[in-house]
Amino acid sequence: MPVLVMKFGGTSVATLDRIKRAAKRVGREVANGYDVIVIVSAMSGETNKLVGFVGETSPMYDAREYDAVVSSGENVTAGLMALTLQEMDVPARSWQGWQVPLMTDGAHGAARIKEIPSENIMSKFGEGMKVAVVAGFQGISPEGRITTLGRGGSDTTAVAFAAAFDAERCDIYTDVDGVYTTDPRITAKAKKLEKISFEEMLELASLGAKVLQTRSVELAMRYKVKLRVLSSFEEYDPNAGTLICAEEDIVESKVVSGVAASREEAKMTLVSVADTPGIAAAIFGPLADAGINVDMIVQNISDEGETDMTFSCPVDQVKRATTALQEAKAAAKIGFSELLSDVEVAKVSIVGIGMRSQVGVAAKMFKVLSSEGINIKVIATSEIKISVLIDRKYMELAVQALHDAFELEKA
Amino acid sequence: MPVLVMKFGGTSVATLDRIKRAAKRVGREVANGYDVIVIVSAMSGETNKLVGFVGETSPMYDAREYDAVVSSGENVTAGLMALTLQEMDVPARSWQGWQVPLMTDGAHGAARIKEIPSENIMSKFGEGMKVAVVAGFQGISPEGRITTLGRGGSDTTAVAFAAAFDAERCDIYTDVDGVYTTDPRITAKAKKLEKISFEEMLELASLGAKVLQTRSVELAMRYKVKLRVLSSFEEYDPNAGTLICAEEDIVESKVVSGVAASREEAKMTLVSVADTPGIAAAIFGPLADAGINVDMIVQNISDEGETDMTFSCPVDQVKRATTALQEAKAAAKIGFSELLSDVEVAKVSIVGIGMRSQVGVAAKMFKVLSSEGINIKVIATSEIKISVLIDRKYMELAVQALHDAFELEKA
Repeated sequence: MPVLVMKFGGTSVATLDRIKRAAKRVGREVANGYDVIVIVSAMSGETNKLVGFVGETSPMYDAREYDAVVSSGENVTAGLMALTLQEMDVPARSWQGWQVPLMTDGAHGAARIKEIPSENIMSKFGEGMKVAVVAGFQGISPEGRITTLGRGGSDTTAVAFAAAFDAERCDIYTDVDGVYTTDPRITAKAKKLEKISFEEMLELASLGAKVLQTRSVELAMRYKVKLRVLSSFEEYDPNAGTLICAEEDIVESKVVSGVAASREEAKMTLVSVADTPGIAAAIFGPLADAGINVDMIVQNISDEGETDMTFSCPVDQVKRATTALQEAKAAAKIGFSELLSDVEVAKVSIVGIGMRSQVGVAAKMFKVLSSEGINIKVIATSEIKISVLIDRKYMELAVQALHDAFELEKA
Repeated sequence: MPVLVMKFGGTSVATLDRIKRAAKRVGREVANGYDVIVIVSAMSGETNKLVGFVGETSPMYDAREYDAVVSSGENVTAGLMALTLQEMDVPARSWQGWQVPLMTDGAHGAARIKEIPSENIMSKFGEGMKVAVVAGFQGISPEGRITTLGRGGSDTTAVAFAAAFDAERCDIYTDVDGVYTTDPRITAKAKKLEKISFEEMLELASLGAKVLQTRSVELAMRYKVKLRVLSSFEEYDPNAGTLICAEEDIVESKVVSGVAASREEAKMTLVSVADTPGIAAAIFGPLADAGINVDMIVQNISDEGETDMTFSCPVDQVKRATTALQEAKAAAKIGFSELLSDVEVAKVSIVGIGMRSQVGVAAKMFKVLSSEGINIKVIATSEIKISVLIDRKYMELAVQALHDAFELEKA
């Protein structure tokens, strides 16, 4: 029998009624002829409650105990889902991470999956079991202790199972009905995408379209797992949601697939930095040590051996970045005349694999923004993405203008 | 280092503050020179919540999934207790049942412990760990699935660990401060016992002094584990609580140690039963099949080949017992002229190992009751216990009179 992986997030299993609803979808796929592996999150709110307990008990907690505590919510849902399926006469049983065993490294709190042996579950499928319900987000370390995969780790669990079991598809049920051309709260013209490539999804995921954990998309791309994102709250429709797949599975790709926007950005500039070899390392080394997520970096044209260095980072890291840079200056590791920070910026990006073969996309983007009177502060590009930093107050306007200009409202 | 087992029940770990309080007691025993094994229950209310989820999902649930779900509460407390101890600079870590592994049979929901290998935890003690925090109530079946030991199973877990690790003592922390000569709600003269023998405790536990799970006392008796019951809500006192120990450790035993009372009793009588061999089996077989907990049994003197058979059972089982007996009569398996039930009775018992060597204890008990005008309906005796069934309205009076007559208020 072909294997299908179905993952249900916290809101999709928040109550016994919702678990029943999810179980009905699983039952339907069993009727369609699949052996199904269901990955479940904890009932929504449970993991946060447990994380709160741990933080209150021990601010600098032992990550091994954190994992032992916070992984328990998924065990509850897995058992309840198996029972619900059994009530529907669907042969099912639950597995906790250590029972599979889903083997990870020992990086507690953010463990990486090493191996998922499939024999155990496959042999149960062979005996007539139709659904294996697996607690998401958790695994077991080489030392035999419970690990967790980081927030959103159940997505990664699902994709890893799909790869290990050579599943036909991995369906991620969530509270949105797919991936959109842009945030529908910014423009009502936003359209659900039927398909999107892994590469594009990765750019969108890391840009704030928080539908899927980035790592799960990377994993899906590496193992060519067909991923589908769809809503557990809509009526059953075999073609629902958005399919995330390899580029070659998308017959006609548009130049631009989506417009992403992120409001939590800040721009920092070091004025009059000595333009000498190693200066970038001298600046960004201390920032990395301080845990700053530096995103875009721009170095100005050198003028009399001096230059300005501009970078962007999350707005809530500006204080820490400032401290790190001032300390590096005090220690005479770097020199600058001024440190400017602008916390009123936003990042807007257009993403599309069609860009690779099309010239003039960046020029068109800049022209659209300019005709709206929007000043571009920083530009960064990748093969399939162009990002700009602009004044935050223009963010919605920029998204709407770009969405129109690249005709994303057209199916 | 000597090993001490400390068990904290649900009310003792109901909040993070209470866990901290319990951890302080553990820290004190570490300072006293012990390697400590802590057995924890789930935060009070948690297990009931999970049991409710299972019951609502699947009334005739798969016990394996039930166990997977309801065991999760203990995992949370174990991790939080370990973190709390670490915060106090006490080296500690948590173990879930499968990690020990606490091996049980496959009787899900009421599994029995087969083996507790001690190497794993002992080697950690050898490396400087001072406290092993173990999730109570749970184990692992021969098939590698999670089992639970039945309600109150954490007491049994604690005693089993004490036996496996040859612990100096097993301290059961609960919300009462020990075992009393009788229920203090019935007479203010009730005195806390300093010591009581396993045998007496077993009789009291099965008689409604719900301080300890009966199985845990049986296990302690078999492996000669010194058990202490004490309150987690009182100030620390090395001699607090009640010690439950072997008879030979009690220097001077009183004739009667305690008076137990149970209000949830019913008396049933089958009138005019044919007095033939096998009649008792014919009556009590169907009752056993129907799950009736028959307690006391009395058969009257035979009169012209007929007799009356009287027995007691929990008051909430009278209906089921009646149905079972009427069906057996309809099937012509037994015959009786009338089936009487009296649901207004109570059982009062005196318990004491000193009875064995003392004559006239029963006579004294009957005389005390008679002088209070209390009619005895049924009598049952064991080596160290005498129980009577009386009208429920006299229960408190009987307890008070017996408590006075056997001078239990004296230390």
